[in-house]
Amino acid sequence: MKTPVTAVLLISCADQTGLVATVSDFLYRNGGNIIHADQHTDHEEGVFLQRVEWDIAGFAVDRAGMHEAFRPIAERFGMTWSLQFSDETPRMAIFVSKMHHCLYDLLARWRLGELQCDIPLIISNHQDAEPIAADFGIEFHHLPVTAATKDDQEAHMVRLLDGAGVDVVVLARYMQVLSDGFVTRYPNRIINIHHSFLPAFAGAKPYHQAHERGVKIIGATGHYATQELDQGPIIEQGVAPVSHRDSVDDLIRKGRDLEKVVLARAVDLHLRHRVLVYGNKTVVFD
Amino acid sequence: MKTPVTAVLLISCADQTGLVATVSDFLYRNGGNIIHADQHTDHEEGVFLQRVEWDIAGFAVDRAGMHEAFRPIAERFGMTWSLQFSDETPRMAIFVSKMHHCLYDLLARWRLGELQCDIPLIISNHQDAEPIAADFGIEFHHLPVTAATKDDQEAHMVRLLDGAGVDVVVLARYMQVLSDGFVTRYPNRIINIHHSFLPAFAGAKPYHQAHERGVKIIGATGHYATQELDQGPIIEQGVAPVSHRDSVDDLIRKGRDLEKVVLARAVDLHLRHRVLVYGNKTVVFD
Amino acid sequence: MKTPVTAVLLISCADQTGLVATVSDFLYRNGGNIIHADQHTDHEEGVFLQRVEWDIAGFAVDRAGMHEAFRPIAERFGMTWSLQFSDETPRMAIFVSKMHHCLYDLLARWRLGELQCDIPLIISNHQDAEPIAADFGIEFHHLPVTAATKDDQEAHMVRLLDGAGVDVVVLARYMQVLSDGFVTRYPNRIINIHHSFLPAFAGAKPYHQAHERGVKIIGATGHYATQELDQGPIIEQGVAPVSHRDSVDDLIRKGRDLEKVVLARAVDLHLRHRVLVYGNKTVVFD
Amino acid sequence: MKTPVTAVLLISCADQTGLVATVSDFLYRNGGNIIHADQHTDHEEGVFLQRVEWDIAGFAVDRAGMHEAFRPIAERFGMTWSLQFSDETPRMAIFVSKMHHCLYDLLARWRLGELQCDIPLIISNHQDAEPIAADFGIEFHHLPVTAATKDDQEAHMVRLLDGAGVDVVVLARYMQVLSDGFVTRYPNRIINIHHSFLPAFAGAKPYHQAHERGVKIIGATGHYATQELDQGPIIEQGVAPVSHRDSVDDLIRKGRDLEKVVLARAVDLHLRHRVLVYGNKTVVFD
Repeated sequence: MKTPVTAVLLISCADQTGLVATVSDFLYRNGGNIIHADQHTDHEEGVFLQRVEWDIAGFAVDRAGMHEAFRPIAERFGMTWSLQFSDETPRMAIFVSKMHHCLYDLLARWRLGELQCDIPLIISNHQDAEPIAADFGIEFHHLPVTAATKDDQEAHMVRLLDGAGVDVVVLARYMQVLSDGFVTRYPNRIINIHHSFLPAFAGAKPYHQAHERGVKIIGATGHYATQELDQGPIIEQGVAPVSHRDSVDDLIRKGRDLEKVVLARAVDLHLRHRVLVYGNKTVVFD
Repeated sequence: MKTPVTAVLLISCADQTGLVATVSDFLYRNGGNIIHADQHTDHEEGVFLQRVEWDIAGFAVDRAGMHEAFRPIAERFGMTWSLQFSDETPRMAIFVSKMHHCLYDLLARWRLGELQCDIPLIISNHQDAEPIAADFGIEFHHLPVTAATKDDQEAHMVRLLDGAGVDVVVLARYMQVLSDGFVTRYPNRIINIHHSFLPAFAGAKPYHQAHERGVKIIGATGHYATQELDQGPIIEQGVAPVSHRDSVDDLIRKGRDLEKVVLARAVDLHLRHRVLVYGNKTVVFD
Repeated sequence: MKTPVTAVLLISCADQTGLVATVSDFLYRNGGNIIHADQHTDHEEGVFLQRVEWDIAGFAVDRAGMHEAFRPIAERFGMTWSLQFSDETPRMAIFVSKMHHCLYDLLARWRLGELQCDIPLIISNHQDAEPIAADFGIEFHHLPVTAATKDDQEAHMVRLLDGAGVDVVVLARYMQVLSDGFVTRYPNRIINIHHSFLPAFAGAKPYHQAHERGVKIIGATGHYATQELDQGPIIEQGVAPVSHRDSVDDLIRKGRDLEKVVLARAVDLHLRHRVLVYGNKTVVFD
Repeated sequence: MKTPVTAVLLISCADQTGLVATVSDFLYRNGGNIIHADQHTDHEEGVFLQRVEWDIAGFAVDRAGMHEAFRPIAERFGMTWSLQFSDETPRMAIFVSKMHHCLYDLLARWRLGELQCDIPLIISNHQDAEPIAADFGIEFHHLPVTAATKDDQEAHMVRLLDGAGVDVVVLARYMQVLSDGFVTRYPNRIINIHHSFLPAFAGAKPYHQAHERGVKIIGATGHYATQELDQGPIIEQGVAPVSHRDSVDDLIRKGRDLEKVVLARAVDLHLRHRVLVYGNKTVVFD
């Protein structure tokens, strides 16, 4: 069976009466066959968020006219919104440093068809990932970064990303801090994996910190990068039990499995348009 | 702040266009302030299920007229449905045998206001739980069961349950098998805790079975009782890691914590009208 | 079958050769039937820790002489050590404030024989737990604390604890900060439950902090109280998944189950002499 | 720092006094610097199992003589035992069918140095994995199996495995049932991943079975293959929560992450000589 092409509408706006009724009426009137619908109201913040996905086959409004058809509703309710189609493949760049387990995991998933995206380029501050990129037939750029070269290299990155039409950047254990200017250029479009259960152990060497503190559980956090390091909206977290028997090296070893799975889940949720950010939080329509 | 009185509408019917639009239009037209709304479509089975909860204050239809107001919609779509109000306190009976940890846990939760229900009676095939019932001021009935007395005792139970206006029966480690006649009298209204990760280790002595098999994880399952033992719709499951170091007694000890938490969650979900059964499965609107 | 009386030897000392050989030779020579033995070497810190438990029936040295018999070995290796017998029931006091779920859970476990201890007294800064204490037949002391009365009330607590021969104090959601003087009087003998996954969300209102941060997992931590608030050695941690659908109240509700289970596990491990503290960490011989 | 070469002694025998004392005395007398030591007694079965690992540098008995030096102890206690050295790299073959996620994961871990083994060959009943094998520079054999060719193909496999000096076979989602003759040839040396939480959903299509049953948690099991399908000793299990929102395809997708992690952990534990089988169970010295 061929997977149908679907439209995905993501909405956020001030909570007000008639939202659900109006959107569902829009779909009903036009003969929309709903595949997935979920909504969330944050009563404290007074925010309404919704995701609706429907089969575009048989929908009364054709693809080209769909934005225009929905715009009046969006304007009436003051919505922030996006409308995307499931056959538009997002383009993803991967940044990596010397630890390659997340890189390998993402590339294998991509080749096996688990991640719906194109991967036009891999950027690293080290040379070593080049053969991996080559195995997967992906363009590789070695952009080492020092305090002196950081501005230039980031400008280079921007040219590469924009040149390749990249929609989302994944920091797959990329150990350089990106500048505010870089981060704000791609709002909610840079996904980072932090190797701790945030907000515990933000910053450097979280497994060493965890070992020092003697915790009984370790974690990993997939989040959007913002100007404040390790403070961005959390998409996904995972944990694993540890004990006094685990050395720092054991934590690092066990943590790698968490990092891979948590980052891949966060990326997959983003690529399937299942994440909405509001304030410093996410709604994940899973 | 006083918690508002809400109406909870639970719907299941054949999937068809216009369902969400019609229900949300009904609420919108009458000024319904939606507190919670969730729906699920099983595309394989062609089943639609929905839960909507709204504040009755300010709703254009008053409480007395609400069933009548919704009935035409329900009939048009051929819905199985219920409408309940959050200030109607369900009445719950607890059945227990010689293991009292789930009983104690439910009673403590009830006294601390965690479970929204009345508990008019406790029934046991043993005498020992009587002092616990007395501590909590609950009527206790000792109804020992043998093959010869089973029919009479179940008839006695039915009289007690019906006399007390019981809505839901919780089997809190009740070790007697109830007859088909008894079980079918209370469809989706008897909640059992089975001390394994069903369908693994159905039947007797699941911790012994688990130990014998050498599993690395044990579980507990909260489910509705049906005529087929341990086969009813699953509401909630929980698991915990174990190792070769754990004897059968250790599994029993660790399992008690699972049983308490899993049963209490299943009961709480049921009491808050968050569970819908279709076929042999549940939808849990959490 | 009667449970045998066992001796439990807990050892910590600088790592050095011959430790395991000497201790196991001591047991072997005296005909010790080992029930449980586990050891841990922290190679970085150069610390050796061991727990050995054996049946005292048939042991060549009688109970009265066992300390003396082992002392030469302990002195030779410079051990910190303790020797306890499984039929010596530790005496436990519970401190509680207005949230009673952990209190109820501990008391139910105690009555059902899950916790091997006596509970001579319950202390609270509020009156409301008194009927619960009465139900379980335990002495209750209402000791409200203000800045002005804190010193006197703590002195009162010390008199009560010492008068009752209390071995371990459990802070079952006791919301007062104890003074340094009080805490240092009972080193590694005060167990606290903190309602977050430490070190995340130390301090006040952790569920509010967690909701504000938008985490996808919440936790609870059982630890020994030290002078630095929420910084003591961690005994046990637990976590549970949450989502954007969970309000602060939902986190509090879900968190209660974590707190109960994690605190009870920490207490049980302590009572069975399965925890050794070194530096600011624990070794848990489970 | 260079990792030291260690000796790993694995022992199982009937429980009897003097075991720990004798083994630790052997190590102590010879100046053994113990890196890891753990033991387990199954009191019901009367079985003792031990793992000891020590630095061979400075040990009084040299590597060549170590087996001879320990043999008298082994014979005295009737031990089943093995002695291995950490610089002997086990040789592992991977069997795979059409699902390649576990294969990719194992190969990436191997290339990144996470798995201490050589991988001389990959065998598949399909052609498609050949390019993956080529990327990693590993010999690939396409051995399609039908009822008519099974005996011959298995004979071919045996020649390949024995020719390559393979120590352990990993079934990384290999969907053919191996004959009894093949399985018994490699006792406790064939590791399979089953995509369910065994013993639930043994046999074919476990995710379909799980969906049909409406479970709230799915799992994966890494175990040694034995003549009885899906009944062998369990090494490792993992689980993940699911809900009514998950279709069979979602279960398959979520399950892949479990399968990868659980299989890799089982393989890693085996390669580091941390698993001992007795009866139909394992002791995992982690």
